[in-house]
This record gives sequence, C-alpha cells and structure tokens, in this order.
Amino acid sequence: MAEAEVHVAMPEEDKPDAETVQVLRDLANRLRIHSIKATCASSTGHPTSCSSAAEIMSVLFFHIMRYKQDDPENPNNDRFILCKRLAFVDVAIGWYRPGLGAACGMAYSGKYFDHASYRVFCLLGDGESWEGSVWEALAFGAHYSLDNLMAIFDVNRLGHSGVLPIENSIEIYQKRCEAFGWNTYVVDGRDVEVLCEVFWQATQVKNKPTAVIAKTFKGRGIPSVEDIENWHGKPMPTERADAIIKLIESQIETNMQLTPKFPIEDSPQINTTEVQMTSLPIYEVGDKVATRKACGLALAKLGHANERVIVLDGDTKNSTFSEIFKKEHPERFIECFIAEQNMVNVALGCTIRGRTIAFVCTFAAFLTRAFDQIRIGSISESNINLIGSHCVVSIGEDGSSQMALEDLAMFRTIPNCTIFYPSDAVSTEYAVFLAANTEGICYIRTNRPETDVIYSPEEKFEIGKAKVIRQSVNDKVTVIGAGVTLLEILVAADELAKQDIPIRVIDLFTIKPLDADTIIAHAKCTAGQIITVEDHHSEGGIREIVCAAVSMEPDILVHGLAVQGVPRSGKPSELLDMCGISASHIIMAVKCMLTN
Amino acid sequence: MAEAEVHVAMPEEDKPDAETVQVLRDLANRLRIHSIKATCASSTGHPTSCSSAAEIMSVLFFHIMRYKQDDPENPNNDRFILCKRLAFVDVAIGWYRPGLGAACGMAYSGKYFDHASYRVFCLLGDGESWEGSVWEALAFGAHYSLDNLMAIFDVNRLGHSGVLPIENSIEIYQKRCEAFGWNTYVVDGRDVEVLCEVFWQATQVKNKPTAVIAKTFKGRGIPSVEDIENWHGKPMPTERADAIIKLIESQIETNMQLTPKFPIEDSPQINTTEVQMTSLPIYEVGDKVATRKACGLALAKLGHANERVIVLDGDTKNSTFSEIFKKEHPERFIECFIAEQNMVNVALGCTIRGRTIAFVCTFAAFLTRAFDQIRIGSISESNINLIGSHCVVSIGEDGSSQMALEDLAMFRTIPNCTIFYPSDAVSTEYAVFLAANTEGICYIRTNRPETDVIYSPEEKFEIGKAKVIRQSVNDKVTVIGAGVTLLEILVAADELAKQDIPIRVIDLFTIKPLDADTIIAHAKCTAGQIITVEDHHSEGGIREIVCAAVSMEPDILVHGLAVQGVPRSGKPSELLDMCGISASHIIMAVKCMLTN
Repeated sequence: MAEAEVHVAMPEEDKPDAETVQVLRDLANRLRIHSIKATCASSTGHPTSCSSAAEIMSVLFFHIMRYKQDDPENPNNDRFILCKRLAFVDVAIGWYRPGLGAACGMAYSGKYFDHASYRVFCLLGDGESWEGSVWEALAFGAHYSLDNLMAIFDVNRLGHSGVLPIENSIEIYQKRCEAFGWNTYVVDGRDVEVLCEVFWQATQVKNKPTAVIAKTFKGRGIPSVEDIENWHGKPMPTERADAIIKLIESQIETNMQLTPKFPIEDSPQINTTEVQMTSLPIYEVGDKVATRKACGLALAKLGHANERVIVLDGDTKNSTFSEIFKKEHPERFIECFIAEQNMVNVALGCTIRGRTIAFVCTFAAFLTRAFDQIRIGSISESNINLIGSHCVVSIGEDGSSQMALEDLAMFRTIPNCTIFYPSDAVSTEYAVFLAANTEGICYIRTNRPETDVIYSPEEKFEIGKAKVIRQSVNDKVTVIGAGVTLLEILVAADELAKQDIPIRVIDLFTIKPLDADTIIAHAKCTAGQIITVEDHHSEGGIREIVCAAVSMEPDILVHGLAVQGVPRSGKPSELLDMCGISASHIIMAVKCMLTN
Repeated sequence: MAEAEVHVAMPEEDKPDAETVQVLRDLANRLRIHSIKATCASSTGHPTSCSSAAEIMSVLFFHIMRYKQDDPENPNNDRFILCKRLAFVDVAIGWYRPGLGAACGMAYSGKYFDHASYRVFCLLGDGESWEGSVWEALAFGAHYSLDNLMAIFDVNRLGHSGVLPIENSIEIYQKRCEAFGWNTYVVDGRDVEVLCEVFWQATQVKNKPTAVIAKTFKGRGIPSVEDIENWHGKPMPTERADAIIKLIESQIETNMQLTPKFPIEDSPQINTTEVQMTSLPIYEVGDKVATRKACGLALAKLGHANERVIVLDGDTKNSTFSEIFKKEHPERFIECFIAEQNMVNVALGCTIRGRTIAFVCTFAAFLTRAFDQIRIGSISESNINLIGSHCVVSIGEDGSSQMALEDLAMFRTIPNCTIFYPSDAVSTEYAVFLAANTEGICYIRTNRPETDVIYSPEEKFEIGKAKVIRQSVNDKVTVIGAGVTLLEILVAADELAKQDIPIRVIDLFTIKPLDADTIIAHAKCTAGQIITVEDHHSEGGIREIVCAAVSMEPDILVHGLAVQGVPRSGKPSELLDMCGISASHIIMAVKCMLTN
C-alpha cells in the first residue's frame, strides 16, 4: 500500500478569489433557506442535515464539479451520490441512494470502461457510516485504486435518535479510512476556502480514492437548533421559520450566481440497447449441461455481442462459471470478493446512465444479503441483472445455509423485476439475452447439477410466455414446474403415461411475469386440476403465484409440492426425494388428486 | 480510545510445558486427519481450511478455553463461534454461523447481563472478512469494550475462487482492527507456543476486545495442496487421502489427550420461559394509540415481568418507541446504531442458550438489510423477536425507500417464523407477550399513525387464531385484513351496512400461521366470496397466503387489494387511497364482486 501522497501547492489560478469565496458562502446560505422552505412546505424532511452540509454542497456544485446544468444526464458530467437525506439535491444533478458502493461502480466505469475524465463525489452522513456496506465499499475503492472517487463524510455528531457513539471523533474516521487504504483529509466543513483547497488536492492524488472527513454541525446557522439533539428529520415550526430565514438572509452579502465548469467531453459513445443473439445456441436435445454453466457460456457470448456487457462476481466465479466470461473478457470482469451488498451497489453504479449492461453472479442464497440494495435499486429505476446459482436442494452436500429456498419470494416482491427460471441450457441462453435487453431488475435462477437439454436451439422464448411441453387430449392434471423440478415432472409424466394417466406439463420459463392465460386455459382442459412443483419454500413461490393467478376462477384447484422446513445436506437425488419434490412424489400427488 | 495495552509477562504456571506443547501439536495433526477423513466420507467440505486453523483450534480447545466437555450447553462454558467452514467443530462444543456479531452478543451478555467469567472466541476466515457485517461487529465490540471477546482471523490467503486481494497482507488486517479500536496481535498461526502466549495476553487486556491475526496456510501439512489455489471446498481424492494421512500421522509423537479447564461457575440462574402478563392492557375501546407506541409500552411492561427481557434498536428508538423500554430498563437496552445486520446477529448471540429474551426494533423496511442473518438465525434454531415499525404507505411523507412493502413476504419464507400483524394497541400488547413465549423467530409488524383501539382488554388472543369482528347472517362477502387495512375495512363495513350490503370482517392477527379453518368456514357463509386488503405488495403477502389456503376449495373466489408498484410520499390517508387500499376502494371491490 503506497504512502500518503505528498501535498502539492495549489496553483493560484485554481484558488477561488475573495469574491468567489463570498458567493460560495452565500450560496450555502441560500441552500439552507431553500431546505427550510422546502421541508416546511412538505411537512417532512431534514433541514438540519441539509444545513450541516451546505458549504460542502456549494463548493462542490459551484466550484469543483464539472457538469452541464441543463443536461444532468450528460455522460461526461461529474457524478454526485448522496447517502444522507437532503432536500435540495434533486434540483441540480439527480440523486441516488445506494451509496458509496454505487459511487465505486460509477468511478470504476469511468476509470476502466469509459477511460474518461469525469469524477465521482459521494456525500455520506456519519450515522450511515455504521453500515457495513460502507466499509465493503471503502475496501473495494482502495483495492481498485479509484483515484477519480471522493467520499465526503459529513460528521455532524447527531443521529436520528441521539448522539452518535464516536462523539466528534473525527480522528477515528480518519484512522479507519486510512487503514482501508484511502487518501484522507480532515477539514472544518464550514470553511469554504479549506474545502476548495482539499477538493483540489484530491484531484492530484493518483491510485487512491480520497476521503474528506468534514466536521460540521447539524442545524448549522439556525439558533437554538445548531448542534442540539432531537431535531433530526423535523421541519422548523412555521412560526419560527420566517425569523430563521431572515437571520440567514442577513448574512448573505452578494446576489451573484456561479456557473459550474463544463465537463471534459471524453466519454465514449456507446450502445447498450438491442443486443442481438448472433448465432443459435450450440446445444442438442439430450446434451447434459448444468444451467449455471450454460449461463457462464451465454455471458461470454453476450460479451462478444456487446462490448459494454460486464460481469461481477463475489468470489464464486469457479462455481457460477462466470470465470468463462472472465477468461474471454478479462477487462470487463469485476471481482467483488465476499461482499454482496457492495457488489450489487457497484453494479447499480456501473449501469447508471446506461453506461454498461451488468450481470451480478453469486450463489442465490447469498443474494439475500443484498435484499435492501436490490430493493432500493428497483425504487431508483435501475437496470441490473442478477444470476443466482446453486439453487435449493439440488445443490446437495453443501447444506441448508447455502440453499436458496426464498430467492423467488424475495425477487417477486421487487417492483418491475423479471424472474427467469430456465429449465435447460438452451432456455438459459435465451434468458441471458432477454435479460440484457429488458429494463428494470432481472433475476436468472440457475442450478448446479448437469441436466438434459430439452429444447432445440430454434425454440423461441419470450418473457411471460410459458411452454406447454407435454400435451394430449386425455390429460388428467396440469403439472407446472421450472428448473430441476421440471425434469422430475417429465420423469413422472413418462411413468404415468405407462400407467395410462397422461398429464399436461408446463414449463413456466419466467416466474414473473407469470403466464396466467396459458395456465388457466390448460387447467381448464384438465378438469381444473393443477399441481405445482418447486425447489423453493411454498411461501411466496410458484404455488402461491399460481394460486393467486387462478383465484377468481371457480373450479380450478391447485395442489403444491414444495420444500418444507429446513432440509439437511445430502446427495441431490436423495434431497429431492426427502423434500417431497421428486418424480415419485409427483406421481403420488397426481394419483391422489385424481382419487379425491 | 485508550492506548494499546502494555503487555505483561506470562507467569510460568500459565505457560504450557514442553510435553503439553507437543501434545497440542499432535492434537492439531489429529484434527487434520479427522477433517480429511470426514470430508472424504461426505464427499464435500473444507479440509484445506480445516488444516490452516488446526493449531489455533487445538490450543483454544485444549489449553485456553474453559468448558465441560460432557455438558456443551452449560451456561458457564466459554463460547466458540465459527465463521469459516470446518469439519470437526460440532463434535466439541457446538458451532454457530452468524459470526462475529453473534460473538459480540454473547460477550455483551456475559459482561453486562450475566456479569460472569465466561469468555467468547470467534474464528474468522480472511475471505469472510470482506463482509461489511464483520466491520459492523468490530465497531460494536470496541464501542462496548467487550474485553471478554477474542476474534481470531485465520489469514490463509486463498479464497473460494482464487487469491484474496490483500495477499498475505497481515499488516492491513492489523491496521484495520486497530483503527476499529481492538487490541491486536499478529502471530504465526502454526506456532503453538506463540498462540498460547497471545491467547493468555488477551485475557489481561481490559476494556478492549482482542483481535489475533494469524498467518496460516490453507491445506497446511498436505503436500502439493498447502498454499496452492483451487483446493477450496474440495475433499482430498480418495486415492491420495491414505498417503496424506500416513504422512501427517508420522509427525505425531504422543498419544496423550488433554482435558480442558473447567469453567468458573458464576453465571446466574435465570428463567426465560413462561413470562406472564401480570395485568390486563390499560386501553379502552376507542382510545387513539399507534401500534408502534403500544409496542414500546408493552416491551417496557414485559421488562418488568421478566428481568432477562432485552431490547435492541438501530438508532430509531424515538420512532419505534423502544425508548420507553430504555427509560424503564436502561441496563437492558442495547443501542446498535445504523447497522441492522450486526443488530440481528447480536440479538442471536444474546439469546443463545436461552440467556435472554431479545426484541430487535427498527423500521420494517430496514430489516431487509438483515434478511440473510434472519434466515441463518432460523436455520440455527434461534429464538429472537423482531419488531418492524412504520409499515408501508401509512408512514406517509417519508417516502417509498422507508416503506416496508415486502416484509411479510420476507418473514413468511423463514421456517418456524411466527408473524403477528396486530390491528390495535390491545392486540399489540398480547402479540408482544405471545412472542416472548414463542420459540423460533417472531416478527411483529406495527404502524406509525394513531389508530382506534378496537378490542377490550379482556379479549383473548392466540397464535393462528383469527378474529371475526363483524358478522351477520346475511353477509355477502368475507373481507380479510390486518393492521391499518382492517380499520379501513371497518369504515367500509359501516358504509356498506347503510346500503344494506353487510360484510363479514376478519382480523388475521397472525399472518403465519394462518387461520385457514376460520377463513374457509366464513367464506362458505358468504357464498365463497373473499376480498383481502393489505398494505404490502401483493407478492408473498396476505392475498397469496389466503389464495394458497383455499386453493383446494372449489367455489371459493379471492380478490385482493394490495399496493401496486412504487408509491410516492404523501399524507397517509391520501396514500391509502392512491394505492387502492382505502375504505372507498374496499366498497367498490365488494360491489364489483357482487355484480360479477
């Protein structure tokens, strides 16, 4: 790890003149007034937090950052990410919630994918800095030498419910950031000239991101509120607001505006839409291929189809087979180590403004660690694709803590999320290409064991369209599955056919959106009898979504086979049987339904 | 923060003699052999990780730790927590997954609740140490001066899929642990005498937890495997295993066993079962009380009923009203700051061996950050209670990122989880007392706005028993809700009654387990017509669980009102209407169902 950089003197031409300094002070006070007015109007918000960071914001937005005010989405603009709640940011340059990890993703994209000059600034509150995801991001930023990234810690001492633990302990933040490998400054967050100086110094440091620890006061400038507890998230009382605003106005000396510097226009022109599958999948029906491996191969192929496809993995690349992508496109693979919250945030950052098409790979079970990040990503209208491998009991000996038994339920709650659960290598490849072209969050669920290819390479797959793969006029029951359970259903169908009990078999392909029309139509052909089979807990999974889809249909009955309780580790075939979702259980369920 | 402690000389009587040192080395090699045999037998596992930590384990288990070998659950035993995967630990003293946070919880309990001598040891791998939850735990452990806690970082350089980033950079771990306020040693993890020395030194340090950074080699002692990539999680090939075992056996010089030291028996006798509600709730029907406040008051009351009740909060105590508990029982309140993963892990640690009855409070939306910890807690058969306040659109102006629209779906996937969604202050108080007496994970969902008390204090509440609160012979539709939606249903019922359209109203009280019998019986009384109303996404929520419960009942139809998409911020009453779950939408839905 390199020594802290020697500071160089700031050239005179970069120093703000006395007038500019005063205008920046005045702009900070105008932001204070704006935040008081805005939060009074909406009856909620954080005027005290806004006040503590007002000088930081005015210096950043009107002296340091390069951007086009009238074109906030311009790819050459510097980026600003806010991880504390302020009322006035969205007016300027857009704000974004997933924090320092997303800032890392933007900086990584700027440095390694765009090779461009834009810089990334991230403002964090000190309360938020207790979150482990912040320290995951600090480790990541230093590891990848993101010298185009600056994090500003607004240490104002007061949290939501009281005084924060490291009371005014600026030095602790400094030590921790340094230990995590960041170039670090400690400043008075109210001093406009000092802020101009250190923000400039940060641009001179190579191969290290910079952390600025700013000592500030919550409610700065507001009498009887500054640095006092119990004002977090509370607007000023209307009867006091006018007097406070007058007091702040009295400190404003100028009436000037400042124009931010224009960005350097060196971001490449790119296209991240309409990625075409240039050749059909190479599998033949009957080949044995694990869907996780088909996924890795499909990602590598996708990478050839579009040069902005990137893949992130959390120290599982030899299991998810994302290492195939890494081998073919090493410059577009990001190893994120065991830090899934940060991995998702980095992906969110990489995809902002459509700069990349990102795929995040890990064991499906580990994605539960990033539920909040995925949720916030969806609220922020992000486009990322997540691949969860090693689903459920088919993973076998590794045991229950690594079995994803709740991933479908989790992703189903995400608004605008598309969930693919392909059942073979061919449909997996189509899922990957469809995901690359689909807005919102996409999730692809893959399995560990090698399984039969059941579709021909020419088969057409669409989002929200199920496949009816066994069908005859005398079908007694419609059996619905996906992934490994579909293969068990096919085994059961063969055995039942011998016993003259034909069944209809539906492969869902996408769990969300669900193809309710196909399900209802075919259920009606089988006397309204449906059985669902899933390698997932019954809660929030395939059974429930099917039940909900037919809930207004009289005369359709749904029986579900799903994993109950906590399975033990064991051989995959034994486990499917132990959990009640193997072919023999399906056969029993069909017969049972027909005799009732 | 205090300076690093001055080391004192280890007294001769605590030093292991030469024979003991050799026996400890031999025990380490026996553990290596055991791990190779066990992982070969089960065809999975981590013999290489086991080998790197073998000396650490032999010194801890046979020289440092105090415990009764034949009584692993004894409350006076030292605790051991494993955050890396080893094959041989469960034979000795039980192992536990949720990591350093759980170790913090055990140490906190030992120091502040039990005032006992037992110590807590936690072994972490270096790959795992990229997880932010580890750094949340480090911050917590130092903040609460847990000098009865030792974390051992087994830095063996090799992760699951390759070389870890801070290659052999022991010093980085040291700097980071020191910056987080821990007393820190760096040692050769293979050196039994050095391990004995530093583990003893750690016992002398006051007011700081100790981190031991141990340099080790993965696959230690196994030729062509030690410190080589690509062996993670792979058993030795059977054909090589015998030769490897012979080689390790040849290094064993003694055939002695060591007996661990007995524990100091100073843990208090406690009772954490059968907590009684000593007096009825004090509310009267018609009182206006927010369920979040009723929950805070109930926790304080529960704290008087049992002195082992503890409450944890993540910087939201003035919003969740856990501050009421803190005021009455300050010594049993743990402020966990904004670090929800660690908060859940600490609670899991506090409840191990039934030492406390723990309640974790925060905004329901923030619990999504701890999904993996809750999931692992359930797999580990833990007993903790979580309270999620500020649910959904009723929170109003704070906006969508803080609205829990997926908490029911998340908790429903947790095996053995009981989910309470009380609709008024009286049922909230009963929910708190029931949760205190219920095994497994319990979740209580509360709301922000003040709402009517609808139950009399004498009403009896049971898990899995719904309340039918409006009922007449001519009811047309059964309408099911909980929490704020129940109150909207009652408003709708009054209005519909005026229009001569009586409806049956069911308050679920617990979402899991669901009272399917009551739902089905009453639905049949209303011509099979059910409407569900929930302040949650429809995915995985009340509608789907009801649909699944009636899925084998012909002639029962379920229509659901739930929150679609991402709601904006706004006034609570406006939001209920905007999301389609207000009384007026319920009235429309009832009429619509009757005309179809």
